Amino acid sequence: MKISLGTDIGGTNTCVGSVSADGIVLYKETFPTSDYTDATLYADRLAEAVRAVMTATASDSAHTDIEWLGLGIGAPNGNHRSGSIEHAPNLNFKGLIPLVELMEARLDLPKIDLTNDANAAAIGEKIFGAAQDYSDFIMITLGTGLGSGVFVNNQLVYGHDGFAGEVGHISVIPDGRYCGFGRRGSLENYCSATGIRRTFFEMLAQLGSSTSLDHMNIGELTAKDVSEAAENGDPVAQATMDFTGRLLGEALASTALVTSPAAFFLFGGPVKAGPILLDPLRSSFEQHLIPPFKNKIKIIESALPMGDAAILGAAALVIE
Amino acid sequence: MKISLGTDIGGTNTCVGSVSADGIVLYKETFPTSDYTDATLYADRLAEAVRAVMTATASDSAHTDIEWLGLGIGAPNGNHRSGSIEHAPNLNFKGLIPLVELMEARLDLPKIDLTNDANAAAIGEKIFGAAQDYSDFIMITLGTGLGSGVFVNNQLVYGHDGFAGEVGHISVIPDGRYCGFGRRGSLENYCSATGIRRTFFEMLAQLGSSTSLDHMNIGELTAKDVSEAAENGDPVAQATMDFTGRLLGEALASTALVTSPAAFFLFGGPVKAGPILLDPLRSSFEQHLIPPFKNKIKIIESALPMGDAAILGAAALVIE
Repeated sequence: MKISLGTDIGGTNTCVGSVSADGIVLYKETFPTSDYTDATLYADRLAEAVRAVMTATASDSAHTDIEWLGLGIGAPNGNHRSGSIEHAPNLNFKGLIPLVELMEARLDLPKIDLTNDANAAAIGEKIFGAAQDYSDFIMITLGTGLGSGVFVNNQLVYGHDGFAGEVGHISVIPDGRYCGFGRRGSLENYCSATGIRRTFFEMLAQLGSSTSLDHMNIGELTAKDVSEAAENGDPVAQATMDFTGRLLGEALASTALVTSPAAFFLFGGPVKAGPILLDPLRSSFEQHLIPPFKNKIKIIESALPMGDAAILGAAALVIE
Repeated sequence: MKISLGTDIGGTNTCVGSVSADGIVLYKETFPTSDYTDATLYADRLAEAVRAVMTATASDSAHTDIEWLGLGIGAPNGNHRSGSIEHAPNLNFKGLIPLVELMEARLDLPKIDLTNDANAAAIGEKIFGAAQDYSDFIMITLGTGLGSGVFVNNQLVYGHDGFAGEVGHISVIPDGRYCGFGRRGSLENYCSATGIRRTFFEMLAQLGSSTSLDHMNIGELTAKDVSEAAENGDPVAQATMDFTGRLLGEALASTALVTSPAAFFLFGGPVKAGPILLDPLRSSFEQHLIPPFKNKIKIIESALPMGDAAILGAAALVIE
């Protein structure tokens, strides 16, 4: 049986898993990424985790005649063309880390591939999720940031430089919120989980009313709290989710103009908010499309399971 | 010798030309598009013009053993997938015009293809212009509107629906200028030739000063007048070109995030303004890119000759 390996490198933890051809995570192992400041030592630890997962998978009598397809790695700022993690702001190993090369020196696998986490999610959706019948689509992942992966003609677009699909950094509000990099007003500062938190404070400022979240510590408030308060009828939280949905809808309408996708797939915690986010999003999306695009492009919730999506996406990289 | 045929359908005139393999327009013929309200009669006239150009080309003794590659058609709202002109606002024949089918019934050519004018320009740049060595680039055409054509992996992106590459309709100023379609704030209402005219009036309003163009009739003022006045030191015109360049730079930086092109090629009258437009454009473009994209993407003036670009682009469609 064909089994692939997927690694999700996060700022806090690294997770490695083995994935069957039908998209089931068979075994997985986790270790802290943040313990490592040296990329070589990290590569040693990652190789050890991969071997442990391979051994555990092979020792299960249900898995016979295993053909290992390879190891896919999803990482922040992972560049598919260079095989390197490039200047990832939230990892402890800095600069250019040639991770594919480091892992090829440590593991004997037919294929080792790297891309960023949102691109991996897009491939995961295509191979294992709801995008299997779509040749042209865009995956949007909402979390701390807003990531994206763009499929054109059944292929993930890496672009000239390996970094295509950075829709989160599109400018949506001229001279808007501060984003880091000295830039302002980009989409992810409004419509990621972090952005929803910021919008809640903006709505508090604008509406000046008390809310059902007044008892919470400012620092502890999350997008999930806002989304739940909105569902329970809190007007400030509702205004926040409505603003988020409408702005994201407008931004997706602009993005659709570039590659004319058949669908957007939305993944991540905020998407679980359901209609309080998705209704204003879909309505604003249609409103901002030009006539030849109207009523043709679907907005679909990802079918990838929240917990295993990153591993599935990374593993799909070597199946593609 | 291999010769292709290109047709540029504009709201006012239709131009048909024969094009050699090295991108020289050999013969061309023009007739008024606006005379025709019936698509069938228009197709008859277009076929007649194509035959006339073929006859004239073949009668030149310099052209021996002609192999006709086919007819490429560039038209507003031309949909490559359907082969139809779909609801073009500035043509007199309305609705869905199955032009490829109409021409196939009238002409015996190996290939008849249709796309919109900006996509045709992108293919023209790739086959005959400055983009020959680029696999990932975006063509931007500045005229009455702002058109674009997107190349990914050496292929023009048509997208799910045949209408990819509508960068001109990206929203850049929330609740900004009225655009038609009930939409507001889209790029082409600021950075096309028409947009430059509108910005000049906005600058007149904001700066309240007299200008070297005060003697002109309001209705007759063009982007070219503004650009020339800017070159001659008129402060209102200079502010206009600076604003245009900066806003276009920001919008191209956002667009670059989607497909990570190696270059943008700029075509059209306003581009002839040179540094007064391109300097602020390039500076704003770099400023708005995220670090992994900085100093890697070129902004290049199109190498297609202004007069023949549309015919060359259309003809390139059947060479591609």
